Amino acid sequence: MAKAIFYHAGCSVCVSAEQDILNLIPENQVEVIHLGEDKAKVKEAEAAGVQSVPALVLSNGNVLHINFGASIEDLK
Amino acid sequence: MAKAIFYHAGCSVCVSAEQDILNLIPENQVEVIHLGEDKAKVKEAEAAGVQSVPALVLSNGNVLHINFGASIEDLK
Repeated sequence: MAKAIFYHAGCSVCVSAEQDILNLIPENQVEVIHLGEDKAKVKEAEAAGVQSVPALVLSNGNVLHINFGASIEDLK
Repeated sequence: MAKAIFYHAGCSVCVSAEQDILNLIPENQVEVIHLGEDKAKVKEAEAAGVQSVPALVLSNGNVLHINFGASIEDLK
C-alpha cells in the first residue's frame, strides 16, 4: 500500500498535535514532509490538493486538512 | 493509554475520508462517535473543545479539526 503523506510547515503551536497524530498512525504508513524546509515539495503538495497545512494526503488521493485548535496551555 | 475519540456526524461526502483515517489508526486506539445518532454526546464533544466535525480528540486533550476537501469524484 502507498504511504500517506503528512505535510506541515513547522508551526510551533501545532508541533505537539502533529506528533500526536503521528503517534497514532504506524510509522511505516506515513511519510512526513516539512514544506518550510523542503520548498521543492510545495508544488507537489499543491498538485495533490493541499490548501493549508498541516494536511494528510491519503494513499487513495483524499486530502484531509487538519486544523488544530491550540490549547491555552500551548500559548502560555 | 486512553483512546482518541473520532467525532463525526455521518457527512456523506466525508465518509470515505473518515474510513481512510480510521484505517490508518489502529482500531484499539480510537473510539468513533456519531453525533447525529448519539446527540447526548454533543455536550461532551463541546466540552472537549470540538467546534466542527469530523474531529479527532486525542488522549492528551488536543483537538484536531479535520476538513476534507471533497474530490470532484465524490460529488458526481
